[in-house]
Amino acid sequence: MNISSTDANTGHSGIYYRTIGNEIVVFEHCHTNHLPLLLKGPTGSGKSRFVEHMAERLELPLYTVSCHEETSAVDLIGRFVIRGNETVWQDGPVTRAVREGALLYIDEVAEARPDTIVSLHSLTDHRRSLFIERTGEQLHAPATFMLIAAYNPGYQGIARELKSSTKQRFVSMSFDYPEQSIETEIVARESRLAEKQAAQLVKLARKIRNLNEPGLAETVSTRLLVNAAKLIHQGLPPRSACRCAIVEPLSDDDEIKTALLDIVTLSF
Amino acid sequence: MNISSTDANTGHSGIYYRTIGNEIVVFEHCHTNHLPLLLKGPTGSGKSRFVEHMAERLELPLYTVSCHEETSAVDLIGRFVIRGNETVWQDGPVTRAVREGALLYIDEVAEARPDTIVSLHSLTDHRRSLFIERTGEQLHAPATFMLIAAYNPGYQGIARELKSSTKQRFVSMSFDYPEQSIETEIVARESRLAEKQAAQLVKLARKIRNLNEPGLAETVSTRLLVNAAKLIHQGLPPRSACRCAIVEPLSDDDEIKTALLDIVTLSF
Amino acid sequence: MNISSTDANTGHSGIYYRTIGNEIVVFEHCHTNHLPLLLKGPTGSGKSRFVEHMAERLELPLYTVSCHEETSAVDLIGRFVIRGNETVWQDGPVTRAVREGALLYIDEVAEARPDTIVSLHSLTDHRRSLFIERTGEQLHAPATFMLIAAYNPGYQGIARELKSSTKQRFVSMSFDYPEQSIETEIVARESRLAEKQAAQLVKLARKIRNLNEPGLAETVSTRLLVNAAKLIHQGLPPRSACRCAIVEPLSDDDEIKTALLDIVTLSF
Amino acid sequence: MNISSTDANTGHSGIYYRTIGNEIVVFEHCHTNHLPLLLKGPTGSGKSRFVEHMAERLELPLYTVSCHEETSAVDLIGRFVIRGNETVWQDGPVTRAVREGALLYIDEVAEARPDTIVSLHSLTDHRRSLFIERTGEQLHAPATFMLIAAYNPGYQGIARELKSSTKQRFVSMSFDYPEQSIETEIVARESRLAEKQAAQLVKLARKIRNLNEPGLAETVSTRLLVNAAKLIHQGLPPRSACRCAIVEPLSDDDEIKTALLDIVTLSF
Amino acid sequence: MNISSTDANTGHSGIYYRTIGNEIVVFEHCHTNHLPLLLKGPTGSGKSRFVEHMAERLELPLYTVSCHEETSAVDLIGRFVIRGNETVWQDGPVTRAVREGALLYIDEVAEARPDTIVSLHSLTDHRRSLFIERTGEQLHAPATFMLIAAYNPGYQGIARELKSSTKQRFVSMSFDYPEQSIETEIVARESRLAEKQAAQLVKLARKIRNLNEPGLAETVSTRLLVNAAKLIHQGLPPRSACRCAIVEPLSDDDEIKTALLDIVTLSF
Amino acid sequence: MNISSTDANTGHSGIYYRTIGNEIVVFEHCHTNHLPLLLKGPTGSGKSRFVEHMAERLELPLYTVSCHEETSAVDLIGRFVIRGNETVWQDGPVTRAVREGALLYIDEVAEARPDTIVSLHSLTDHRRSLFIERTGEQLHAPATFMLIAAYNPGYQGIARELKSSTKQRFVSMSFDYPEQSIETEIVARESRLAEKQAAQLVKLARKIRNLNEPGLAETVSTRLLVNAAKLIHQGLPPRSACRCAIVEPLSDDDEIKTALLDIVTLSF
Repeated sequence: MNISSTDANTGHSGIYYRTIGNEIVVFEHCHTNHLPLLLKGPTGSGKSRFVEHMAERLELPLYTVSCHEETSAVDLIGRFVIRGNETVWQDGPVTRAVREGALLYIDEVAEARPDTIVSLHSLTDHRRSLFIERTGEQLHAPATFMLIAAYNPGYQGIARELKSSTKQRFVSMSFDYPEQSIETEIVARESRLAEKQAAQLVKLARKIRNLNEPGLAETVSTRLLVNAAKLIHQGLPPRSACRCAIVEPLSDDDEIKTALLDIVTLSF
Repeated sequence: MNISSTDANTGHSGIYYRTIGNEIVVFEHCHTNHLPLLLKGPTGSGKSRFVEHMAERLELPLYTVSCHEETSAVDLIGRFVIRGNETVWQDGPVTRAVREGALLYIDEVAEARPDTIVSLHSLTDHRRSLFIERTGEQLHAPATFMLIAAYNPGYQGIARELKSSTKQRFVSMSFDYPEQSIETEIVARESRLAEKQAAQLVKLARKIRNLNEPGLAETVSTRLLVNAAKLIHQGLPPRSACRCAIVEPLSDDDEIKTALLDIVTLSF
Repeated sequence: MNISSTDANTGHSGIYYRTIGNEIVVFEHCHTNHLPLLLKGPTGSGKSRFVEHMAERLELPLYTVSCHEETSAVDLIGRFVIRGNETVWQDGPVTRAVREGALLYIDEVAEARPDTIVSLHSLTDHRRSLFIERTGEQLHAPATFMLIAAYNPGYQGIARELKSSTKQRFVSMSFDYPEQSIETEIVARESRLAEKQAAQLVKLARKIRNLNEPGLAETVSTRLLVNAAKLIHQGLPPRSACRCAIVEPLSDDDEIKTALLDIVTLSF
Repeated sequence: MNISSTDANTGHSGIYYRTIGNEIVVFEHCHTNHLPLLLKGPTGSGKSRFVEHMAERLELPLYTVSCHEETSAVDLIGRFVIRGNETVWQDGPVTRAVREGALLYIDEVAEARPDTIVSLHSLTDHRRSLFIERTGEQLHAPATFMLIAAYNPGYQGIARELKSSTKQRFVSMSFDYPEQSIETEIVARESRLAEKQAAQLVKLARKIRNLNEPGLAETVSTRLLVNAAKLIHQGLPPRSACRCAIVEPLSDDDEIKTALLDIVTLSF
Repeated sequence: MNISSTDANTGHSGIYYRTIGNEIVVFEHCHTNHLPLLLKGPTGSGKSRFVEHMAERLELPLYTVSCHEETSAVDLIGRFVIRGNETVWQDGPVTRAVREGALLYIDEVAEARPDTIVSLHSLTDHRRSLFIERTGEQLHAPATFMLIAAYNPGYQGIARELKSSTKQRFVSMSFDYPEQSIETEIVARESRLAEKQAAQLVKLARKIRNLNEPGLAETVSTRLLVNAAKLIHQGLPPRSACRCAIVEPLSDDDEIKTALLDIVTLSF
Repeated sequence: MNISSTDANTGHSGIYYRTIGNEIVVFEHCHTNHLPLLLKGPTGSGKSRFVEHMAERLELPLYTVSCHEETSAVDLIGRFVIRGNETVWQDGPVTRAVREGALLYIDEVAEARPDTIVSLHSLTDHRRSLFIERTGEQLHAPATFMLIAAYNPGYQGIARELKSSTKQRFVSMSFDYPEQSIETEIVARESRLAEKQAAQLVKLARKIRNLNEPGLAETVSTRLLVNAAKLIHQGLPPRSACRCAIVEPLSDDDEIKTALLDIVTLSF
């Protein structure tokens, strides 16, 4: 599990986020109606950045938890720890988010152990409460609290499926890679690369995404394009940059890598 | 495991519950005869709300435990915890419910570890007692105590089946989605949406429930209809609302989602 | 694991038990000869009640342990627990039963972890002793001590088989549902229902037991009949009572439930 | 794991043991030559009793450990335990046996966890030493110390095989049920039943052992005959005694039980 | 997990590293752009040595962690340990590397438990932060900090694949064995063997690498050649040296070993 | 795990070891060149005795660890243990061997958990260091330190294979049973049996080793011959001795045992 907290009041400069559809409206309606929200979409399609953006927009602190196969309810809610001669209760990120009326973002929620999800049930329905069994404390979420979860439904070989009964507890939106002009704008903006070269990278990504190569578990994300753009902007030849930032991260298979490099060569 | 407690005496405003059959009579007979009750039915069919309603009706406190694959007997009955320099016994929710003569609601009981169920055996038969091994204490349930359990028998891919020898310890009732007029009443009441639009949503649900689509692990619950209704009431266009609140929560499969969206389009 | 203790001296009113064969004689011979006894039979066939009856008859305290997949030797024999600033040894139910020369009843013994059984070996043969490794204490069972175990050999899908080398340590008896007149007597007596209606319920049970329906993991136990009888005695219509107390506990399958309800309808 | 210790000096009356072959000579040669001994044979063939007998004959204390699937090296060698405010080292049975130069009998050794066996390796070869890692103590076994292990090679469905490299560390002997006249002598002696009736029981056992019934995991051991003999001696009719003490312990299958009962009927 | 730390300031003599392609440029660009780097390649292809070289070149301390199947996030980030009467927080290697702005090298990353990788996510993207849940401390990586990971994609029978979503977080480079003249230079330099004999060993390696023998899980690494060269330099006959340092480490199969020895014989 | 330590300075009388090939030269070259050594070979082929011999020859202390499936890095490197009111660090055998510049012998290394091997990596390459994560201590191995590992590659049904990347870290040698005259010398010397009778036993072993019987997991080791020789020397008839010391330890299968006994009968 990986947790990070962002305090909306500490004056971080605004996070760059490029709107794609009605995602901001739906998010705000969910926030108003006290409905939890589930974001579905592939790696690097902007789910996390969207949530960070909404936290800034709503001026609310954000707690982010990245789940993995060992994430358990105790990690989320809290535990007693021994300090010196005493045991002290330590809030987990969910508890902290509830106390502060923050946004709580549970990333890769499908990978967590089942008790993780179940521990959040009472926060997803009309109760909006969290009972901390170990301390006997019952918390009621402030009106500003909102739970957002995310996962990648297309991920091959996923160990644990999100249960249907859990999915039904959330309003959901699907994320995908943005359309060509928007993606070019994002790549250029984040890497400081010239728009024309950024457009070349996005065209390359389109070609690879259309490959439909069964050996590829995932395809080129916007993140990979930004990495390549940064290396090119730094002075690395485009083909070397694409090899390191796009081809090698996508595959370990020599044939697939050769095929991808051919596409790179045609593009530059 | 997720636990919440509701104190019947704290003056919560009554929970809205719409009676469907003879469920209240059977519940009361079980309560009088000291028989435990098992509720079977799909996600969102109102089992939990029914139990909350009965707790208010009988003016008894309610302890709710949502089980998951890691829920064990210790979680239910209690444990010694270290506080400062001392070990203190901490009652689990079952023990608390027995001491107070409360209603004890064990939700998703089939998902718990087997010792969870077995730890409740002596509360389900003529003994009505709980022996806390760790403290040596023997509790006898007051006359008002009643154990209610629930699970979803149609849930696909369930890891653990409830054992026959356990099922035979309970009187049982099956829950299903309510009939059209009742469901409309529920949706309208909970979302504050106009009855006519609520009826449209219920008709849509009927169509989807009749689909018999093998790709759907579960079908539209009343809860999903209420979510959609809330978003529509808030101003989101009905098709966007149904996409986020009904279609996306039901499936990650593009073909199935297109089919569901077609039905939505025909309905609005 | 579920433990309960009954003190024979506390003046509980006698438990109702209806003798079926030579089970009392065999039990008493085993008690005299210091032979452990194994009871085999389906859910609700009266094994536990028989043991409770024998405890009263022999005027001996009874320790009952219901095993499950997590039951281990430590649960049975005892453990050190931390209390305040000290560790204190806490006898488990087996140790207590040996110290007091009580009857020790290990129910669902086949489900326990293997060390559970092995921990009892020295109590089942000529040694009749228990060595508590953690404390170094060696206990010799008083003459009144007797070990009784039970399991359901017909239980489908059992995870763990009782080992042959363990079975050979016990004298064994098979239990089955009692014959028609005896079962009627039991149902009437326990539910206070009129004998005639009780007989109808027993006839219904016979029909269902003869069904030989592969979808039924277990069939109607006497316990289910008593539950139905109680609900009828309370005023619930017989068909509703049979649905809740017999049909629903036996199956989650709609076709099987319809078939069972048809039999119910023919009976009332 | 089940441990018991017998102090040779406490004046237990001699254990009855009937010699069958050269087992006593081989045992004594192993004792003299500091070779460990492995006893192989079915349940109830007298391995444990033989070891108890040798302990009395050699006037040495005996430590017996019955292994199961959870038995680990720590259980055998010892552990630190917390007592009051201190941690105290507590010898396990192996350590105690080495310190006292006792006989150490590891029963059902094939069922123990692999570290159990490996923890004994340095005691089985020329080193004859035990290094207690946790305390840093190195023990050298006195000349009188001897390690005896036992297992049942014919046991079906055994989870763990004894490794070849372990078997090669032991001198080995196979045990089987004794011949007819010897077995009769044993049954009569242990049950106090008349020799003629004991002979009938042994004849019955021969018939059942020749059955070669695939449904029987194990066949009639001498122990079962002794149990039946005790019940008959107590006054139970022979057929009832054989049903409870021989047929029911051997099988849960109705057809096999009927076949076995037919043989019983022919015998009495 | 195996951890070692090298302090760049302690004046270790420079590590010998022979550049092969543009790996130094790519590494430095990643360092400047705050992009994490993933090295892919077979055992003994110089990945670890390259990282040690870069640490010296950049004059930065290096923390190396070799992962295995049990490596968890706690091992990397830190834990509370009890010292005397107090609990003290102890930084793990990741935390130390972040605090010091060091290079952090996670070797065999694909073998670690999934939480290991996820615990590093916030260090691999724009956040470059590490939130230590247990202490509530949030660390921001200094500009000099860089994360390098490595694994062997061709390793047969690997238990855990590195997830696509993780790979996409890194810029990547593939390592392979160096070309003939460079490998000869390396072998001679590291073993002090004459260049001519080193060349013979490299030629032998080429032949074995071309074998394409399915029985060989891995082929001759440069490391094996250096070992053989050292033994020859020490006076062992070349064929004995190659048998011990090349043939036996590559296979346990007699036929394959004979085939490899034939190639050795032809080479010397 | 089984650990024993031999202090070279305590004046143990020399261990008998009969050289077979160039194993002593290779061992000494590895010791001089700081290369770790891996010994491969079947049970009882003299690997352990060879290492003990080299420890005496080099006048170095020897730490032996016998691994099993539960052996972990913590067992090897050390742990904090609670003593009275304090936690004390306790070196494991690897740490002790590094501190003292001893020989460290890891027997049955392929059976250890993977972290065991990985924890030794930094001791097998140019670093020759051990970083103790828990204490933050970094140890550099003295020049006399050497790591020797051993395993049996022919062992059937081995749960864990030694990884190729681990094998490549070691210089390796294969051990096999010695030739006839040498083996006779060993058997006679260790058992004090007359050379002629020892020769008969060795001839018997040759015959059994040539059997190529698929039912035999392992064949006759020199150890078994020595055991048989000791029993014969003690006065047991040769056929009884061979049955107990050779045939029974090799197989539990009646047909195979009969075949082996026939060979024994032909030999004596």
